[in-house]
Amino acid sequence: MAQRGNLMTFRPDIKVVDATIRDGGLVNDFYFSDEFVKNLYRTNVKAGVDYMEFGYRADKEMFDIDSFGKWKFSSDEDIRSITGDNNTSLKIAIMADVGRCNYKEDIHERSESPVDLIRVATYVNTMPAALDMIEDAHKKGYETTCNIMAISNAKESDISAALEMLGSSPADGIYIVDSYGSIFPEQIRKIAEQYMEAADKSGKFIGIHAHNNQQLAFANTIESCAQGVSYLDATMSGMGRGAGNCPMELLLGFLKNPQYKLFPVIQFIENYVVPLKETGMEWGFDIPYLLTGHLNQHPRAAIAAMKEGRKDYSGFYKEIVDKD
Amino acid sequence: MAQRGNLMTFRPDIKVVDATIRDGGLVNDFYFSDEFVKNLYRTNVKAGVDYMEFGYRADKEMFDIDSFGKWKFSSDEDIRSITGDNNTSLKIAIMADVGRCNYKEDIHERSESPVDLIRVATYVNTMPAALDMIEDAHKKGYETTCNIMAISNAKESDISAALEMLGSSPADGIYIVDSYGSIFPEQIRKIAEQYMEAADKSGKFIGIHAHNNQQLAFANTIESCAQGVSYLDATMSGMGRGAGNCPMELLLGFLKNPQYKLFPVIQFIENYVVPLKETGMEWGFDIPYLLTGHLNQHPRAAIAAMKEGRKDYSGFYKEIVDKD
Repeated sequence: MAQRGNLMTFRPDIKVVDATIRDGGLVNDFYFSDEFVKNLYRTNVKAGVDYMEFGYRADKEMFDIDSFGKWKFSSDEDIRSITGDNNTSLKIAIMADVGRCNYKEDIHERSESPVDLIRVATYVNTMPAALDMIEDAHKKGYETTCNIMAISNAKESDISAALEMLGSSPADGIYIVDSYGSIFPEQIRKIAEQYMEAADKSGKFIGIHAHNNQQLAFANTIESCAQGVSYLDATMSGMGRGAGNCPMELLLGFLKNPQYKLFPVIQFIENYVVPLKETGMEWGFDIPYLLTGHLNQHPRAAIAAMKEGRKDYSGFYKEIVDKD
Repeated sequence: MAQRGNLMTFRPDIKVVDATIRDGGLVNDFYFSDEFVKNLYRTNVKAGVDYMEFGYRADKEMFDIDSFGKWKFSSDEDIRSITGDNNTSLKIAIMADVGRCNYKEDIHERSESPVDLIRVATYVNTMPAALDMIEDAHKKGYETTCNIMAISNAKESDISAALEMLGSSPADGIYIVDSYGSIFPEQIRKIAEQYMEAADKSGKFIGIHAHNNQQLAFANTIESCAQGVSYLDATMSGMGRGAGNCPMELLLGFLKNPQYKLFPVIQFIENYVVPLKETGMEWGFDIPYLLTGHLNQHPRAAIAAMKEGRKDYSGFYKEIVDKD
């Protein structure tokens, strides 16, 4: 596939999606202060970011509201307490997980909600459930994406089938998700080609959500972008589960659209992210994450090792190689 | 240019070069303990690394031997105290800087030295001096490379001219050096193409030495590799000036040649690199390095800011933008 765009111009189809609260919430069980979230919202508006994802809309019957901060549930009211009427060009997104969201009840008509975009997260083997959620959200008036997770462990033929199912769905976009941070740029370009082919047929856009286990989140984001992928997820300082995500500060430094401003992001990191790190919230590249990424495993063993403060990297390596 | 190799096989022309002491020495003025260097040597042997670069052979008339550790000067005797007769498959390299090395005196016949490879570091505007050093080293029996630094600030036409000059020189290889960590994968592939064209004509190999200011050191290393670049610099945990280099642990995790072993590298990091970091030696990605990389500037302002422990990232940004 030919490259789209170049390093001197900008493509107006590119949209930047801030996923700090949602993926970062996986690190601190969604306990962000209102001050943090309000300032993140203001930063995204100033920086020209296109979408801000708040959190999950998890089912309160399944998840104990006393065990999580409010952005696990991201109610319309809680979002509105941050955004007011959101008279800005920043759109609002939430994530709805297959099997963990009572969407028929908990996702209301868009006309009654501050949310613009519902991102449906699924594994490749639960596509029918994802499609039902997408149809439901679409009927209620939302923009929708389908985020197929953990594709480094899925067969190409299953991905093809999923892309075909999505082609005839009302989903506006489809996301490439490298949950384990195990994909190399050479691979992400091929994957992007496969997704873009499907997107070009069905008139949908393609997005990318990368993880940084091998210090490739930013590289994979911009490399898939050059293949035509246009919705680019990033988080402030890469805040996100395990090794974290594509850092917003790198992505906005790269993009050429004058709409995007790096300076507010640098200010936010200085004033809000550094203090958060100082309270002990931990994410970002480290050897255990490298090792699970290298072995194409879910990062949960690495997250546990980091929580225990383990520094016996070689012992950890032996354990996870043995599990494989 | 067609891709060379793929992710399922390995290219026997690829050589891994450990530059931990040389580039890491820029962080601690080359004050490594003998224990550290000896264990690094053993690790490189075990890990199947092809070359270990000790340090610079700086001119003792120009640089005060009391202000630097011995690897600023990397005498044959000091190297021999680590490697003995080096009856291993690991080859030994040192770096000689244009204008800072009394090469006629201080580089002896290869037959009298434990060194195999002299890497001549130059800017594009001092090529004649570099060529003289290369010829001198070649005559003395060494393998040689020419490492053209800071190419993100050089014109393509000057690079072309330098490559042509090197084509008719006895240099065995030519290095792409992204001193400022400002080059994107899309660019490194084009640069690699330009260098490989010259290399294919003159029968030389091409190497890559990347910096991590934009978390692209590993990505740029493997992306240029896919274009045919075959000498790949890396350092343990990316230890190196400013944002550091391509991490050895990522590179060996990527390469498919069974010669390379990741486990000894993980052990070395656990036993020697983590303790070194705990003594306060600092390197690796941080916002000031991102900003100098983004602006295609030398990292010296960022290094100074980090040394002062500055966390006023936005103030730093204003300063360096203003300087530009």
